[in-house]
This record gives sequence, structure tokens and C-alpha cells, in this order.
Amino acid sequence: MADLTPSERYRLIVNTVTPRPIAWVVTQGKDGTRNCAPFSFFNALGDDPPLIVLGLMANHATGDAKDTARLIRETGEFTIALVGEADGEAMNLTAIDAPPGIDELELARIATLPSLLITPPRIASAPVSFECRTWQIIDAGPRSTVVLGEIVAMHIDDAFLIPGAAGRPPRIDTPAMKLIGRQHGAGMYVRNSDSFEMKRVSWPLPDD
Amino acid sequence: MADLTPSERYRLIVNTVTPRPIAWVVTQGKDGTRNCAPFSFFNALGDDPPLIVLGLMANHATGDAKDTARLIRETGEFTIALVGEADGEAMNLTAIDAPPGIDELELARIATLPSLLITPPRIASAPVSFECRTWQIIDAGPRSTVVLGEIVAMHIDDAFLIPGAAGRPPRIDTPAMKLIGRQHGAGMYVRNSDSFEMKRVSWPLPDD
Repeated sequence: MADLTPSERYRLIVNTVTPRPIAWVVTQGKDGTRNCAPFSFFNALGDDPPLIVLGLMANHATGDAKDTARLIRETGEFTIALVGEADGEAMNLTAIDAPPGIDELELARIATLPSLLITPPRIASAPVSFECRTWQIIDAGPRSTVVLGEIVAMHIDDAFLIPGAAGRPPRIDTPAMKLIGRQHGAGMYVRNSDSFEMKRVSWPLPDD
Repeated sequence: MADLTPSERYRLIVNTVTPRPIAWVVTQGKDGTRNCAPFSFFNALGDDPPLIVLGLMANHATGDAKDTARLIRETGEFTIALVGEADGEAMNLTAIDAPPGIDELELARIATLPSLLITPPRIASAPVSFECRTWQIIDAGPRSTVVLGEIVAMHIDDAFLIPGAAGRPPRIDTPAMKLIGRQHGAGMYVRNSDSFEMKRVSWPLPDD
């Protein structure tokens, strides 16, 4: 890897580490400026504390995270929406290389709802959204910021909750959300439809 | 989220943040002990440096990362294989809750190849594998370790390289790798087959 340029490494990484979940991030500056963009260098990391991670790259051909990184640094707050097929086109529009100060939520006519615990709004149509506060920011490289965020509140659309049996909490109907993931290249995505189950194996194994 | 137990938070997170890419991690202790296990709190984070992240949870009902975290701390080295459909069953077998000291590679009869720059071997059948060195370890919580790893070498099976035009590097045939991702619950996975394209939109938008 040391012999390659960052762009060459990027091409190798995005075309192999797949499928990637998509974080559709909303930030809001102290002056009220809103910003919205999708990122697929994203995942959960644990439950105690409930952490997520975002790898944000500035000045990059296939996605400039400069505004998002700046506003997270400024406020320490952001919402993350998960992206269902129904929101795909709107999400893709917010990946536009618009100049700073352009409100992608307005540009893509995306309705928002207020958050409970933080200032940036959340995307109304999302099956799931997380309210996050910065837990740690790591300046990883010249154009690379790693944000560890703590989930402080979570919203799930009631349409995707299956009532539990008496005294049991509701279950989440994940397949019904039709979440999409990022695949290879600059614009390939995958649906969650072609799924299968493998049951975990318990120790000890039965004798051969 | 503050009102929930870690287990309750875990259930909410793993059933929503999907699809997740799978890191099939091989570690090797100084005494030669090898360990292998899959993790889906995993993604790439950037290209300069080329970082990946693993969220490792110890003593957890659906995956104990204790051995992996301990061996990464001890040696600072690990390989990550990406998982194609052909390796699915073997990968699932290495998710077994075996006691420390059990070599899951041997248990699941997984062939390995030596790495170029680090000691832990890589999985021979994997379409892609990364040789990684610890870049930063974060003690995130009582049972939660976040490992940022730098990719120091990368292997791609020749079968998935498409020769480039004269003077151009080969392209990666991502769909042919048939990589699988983690979906919801304890054992749901998704194939990469049901894919679609959305082309990025460029600024400025055409007039309405």
C-alpha cells in the first residue's frame, strides 16, 4: 500500500469493502446553516457506550465531507438517517458537490423533524434515525477525519415495529425497511432483498 | 438511549445498521496460537492513511471478541479477509464460542497463506485480504475495544482482476467476488446480487 497514491488506495478499498451501510448525515451550524450528505465509511462499533463511526474525507473526487466535518467540529452534534429504497433518489441528490452554504435538505426538498436532544433536525421520511454527539474526533490524515459519535437518541418509524407478546418489547421489522447499502464504484448500491440465514454454531461441536 | 441496557441498545443497533461488511479476522499470538473470527462492526475509514476500523465486544452473547482484542493488543498485527458466498459456511463456523486456545482455522479446516509484512497468516480462499497493523486502540467501554488498523498490504485473487487497457491498471470485478454482508438478527446475511446504480448529480443543477 505504501507504493500507491491515496487515489489508487481509495479505488482498491471502495471496490472491495462492500456492502457498506449508509449514514445520511445532517448537521447544523451555529448560524443555522444546515448541511446534509451521505457517507458509507460508517458503522456501529458497540453498545456500551453506543458508538458509531464516520470516516470523513475532504476534497475528494467522490464525496467532499468538508462541510460535514467542519460543522461536527463546530457543534459536536449530528443526526444520522438510515436510507431505505424510497429515499434513495433524495439521498443521491444530497451527494451533490454543492458549494458550502447550500442547504441540501432544501435543494432535495427533504422534510425534517426536530430532534429531541440535539439541534440538527432529522430526516422525516427515514425508517430509522440516530441523534449523535461527538464522542471523539481523530485527525487521521491530511484530508481525513474520523468521528466517533455516541448515539444519544434513536427514532424508529412505527411502521417497522412489530408488537411484542405480552410484556415484551416490540421487534424491529428490518426487511420491511428496505435499507440500501453501498457497493462498488461511484454509484452502485445493493438492496437488502437477497438474504439468507446461517445459524451460529455452538461449542462444543458434535463428534465427527 | 440512556434509559436502555447495553443488550437492549445492541438489539436496536444490529437490527437497523445494515447491511454491514464482514471482516474475517486472523490473529496470532507470540506463542504461535492462532485465532480466527468474523466481525461486522467493521468498515474502511479513508485512504491517507488507509484505515479500517473494528468494533470488538468482549463477553457478548452474539460474539466474543476477547481473544481477537487480546491478540491484537499483544502483537499489533492482524489480517482481514473479505467473505464471499463460497466461504460463508467456514466463516460461520469460526464464529463459534470456542474457548481460548482453540484454533478456529484448524477447526474449520481453513487453508492459509503467509502474509508479506506481518506474522498472522491470511485466508487462502478469500477473494480479498488485508494485512493490517494497529494504528490506534481505543478503550471505549467496559467490554468494548475500538481498533483502528492501517492496511499495509492488500491481496486480490487474480480471478477478480480485469486487465486494463494499454498502460492502465487492472480493474476489480467486485460483483464476481459475491461478497456477503451482515443483515439483522443473529444470523441473517445478504448477497450482493440485487444491485442498482444511481449516478451522482453534479453542481449546478440544470434549471427547473
